[in-house]
Amino acid sequence: MNCLLLPASNIVESTAYIDDPKQIAHIHQVLKAKVGDRLKVGQLDGNIGSGVIDSMTADLVQLKEVVLSITPPLKLEVTVILALPRPKVLRRLIIDMTAIGVRDIILINSYRTQKSYWQSPMIHRLDEFITEGLQQSVDTVAPSITLKKLFKPFVEDELPSFIEHGAIVAHPYSVCSLTEYFRPLKEHDSHRATVSQKKNFPDIVFIGAEGGWIDYEIELLKANGCTAVHCGPRILRTEAAVNVILGQWLL
Amino acid sequence: MNCLLLPASNIVESTAYIDDPKQIAHIHQVLKAKVGDRLKVGQLDGNIGSGVIDSMTADLVQLKEVVLSITPPLKLEVTVILALPRPKVLRRLIIDMTAIGVRDIILINSYRTQKSYWQSPMIHRLDEFITEGLQQSVDTVAPSITLKKLFKPFVEDELPSFIEHGAIVAHPYSVCSLTEYFRPLKEHDSHRATVSQKKNFPDIVFIGAEGGWIDYEIELLKANGCTAVHCGPRILRTEAAVNVILGQWLL
Repeated sequence: MNCLLLPASNIVESTAYIDDPKQIAHIHQVLKAKVGDRLKVGQLDGNIGSGVIDSMTADLVQLKEVVLSITPPLKLEVTVILALPRPKVLRRLIIDMTAIGVRDIILINSYRTQKSYWQSPMIHRLDEFITEGLQQSVDTVAPSITLKKLFKPFVEDELPSFIEHGAIVAHPYSVCSLTEYFRPLKEHDSHRATVSQKKNFPDIVFIGAEGGWIDYEIELLKANGCTAVHCGPRILRTEAAVNVILGQWLL
Repeated sequence: MNCLLLPASNIVESTAYIDDPKQIAHIHQVLKAKVGDRLKVGQLDGNIGSGVIDSMTADLVQLKEVVLSITPPLKLEVTVILALPRPKVLRRLIIDMTAIGVRDIILINSYRTQKSYWQSPMIHRLDEFITEGLQQSVDTVAPSITLKKLFKPFVEDELPSFIEHGAIVAHPYSVCSLTEYFRPLKEHDSHRATVSQKKNFPDIVFIGAEGGWIDYEIELLKANGCTAVHCGPRILRTEAAVNVILGQWLL
């Protein structure tokens, strides 16, 4: 928690209050903060700044001198389409994708997604994981998350309209490497500075669950505008692949 | 487990046996393999290949037609020096660093490393996590792991002799970005193809634990040859930062 994210309703002019139990616990146990200390706070969908602890109890922290003058960091102009993974892995992936700044996330079914994953209580806790990611990365704007339970109709009917500059699918057994795919895009972009200006970067990144995509899925994605790319000779965990691939946007 | 790693003693000419309970469970429950199926196997410190299941019981799988003809992927020529993190995070980091191909790992104390972390039973399970990483990434050669409980003597007395081409320390509040640091190195390397030829890449990458490095540590590292670099305006989890930074070697 590098920033405490507060809803607008908790902030009134230069004062604010914190009543979320996780945030309160963090202030007491991790930050070990006391009255007079300045905390980093952000307003959900608003600016980032700080406030000074005016009073604190076991379930309420009051802030004064709240100043929110820093705009949140720009999002990466990309939609990640993720094969729904095991619930435990889902939590970490949503946190990481939110933290790294993905704008839109689509959770999709795949051959290797077990049906039970769609019934997991984790699916109803996505907002909580997004908040964790925002508070980790000091951001205030949530990514969108959409659930798509049918792979084929989505890829055939909806996907093509999403693709303007390109779409990639991470696949260890593909011919093209991530380097080969990104090198010309980066050379073209080398005079540009900021994340949001990576205009020729792919709009879509498909990431598989454990076990990856089956051949049928890869062929269907290719037939609908995707390029399969690998990250080198090694097979990475989904979480590692997500950060290696999305790291391209940061660099 | 994209490859079952076997000690040389389990392999005799074109036959091999698997008696590791985790591997047996994987063969039965995840691969759902049966007699006649071909499995991907590797010999610890040796080659990668496959073998055909000749017989199988609840605690032993016999392989025939074992052929090991593929050499393991090259290591990244880098030493990662990691502030010892929480035990749970340590496991995932060792798996990820092994999987991505780090050659040498040093676990070091830092101001934000709690003393109890050094007493964790996880410290005695590093070999197990390395095996997980190797079996994930289809590699057979373990990275070295060294423990250094004293930060200052290591940085002042030992670190300088490690640095030939450069050392970086990940620090969200630094002036230099990862892009700025790597761009000239990559341009110089652009005519080169393979990972092992990235000769001018840094030899050393320092990665902090949760909460990162304190100013004193950053200043000491800078005074001993390190450049502090950030990964953009967002603060990433240690695991995410490791993959974003080491992903540079893959690309």
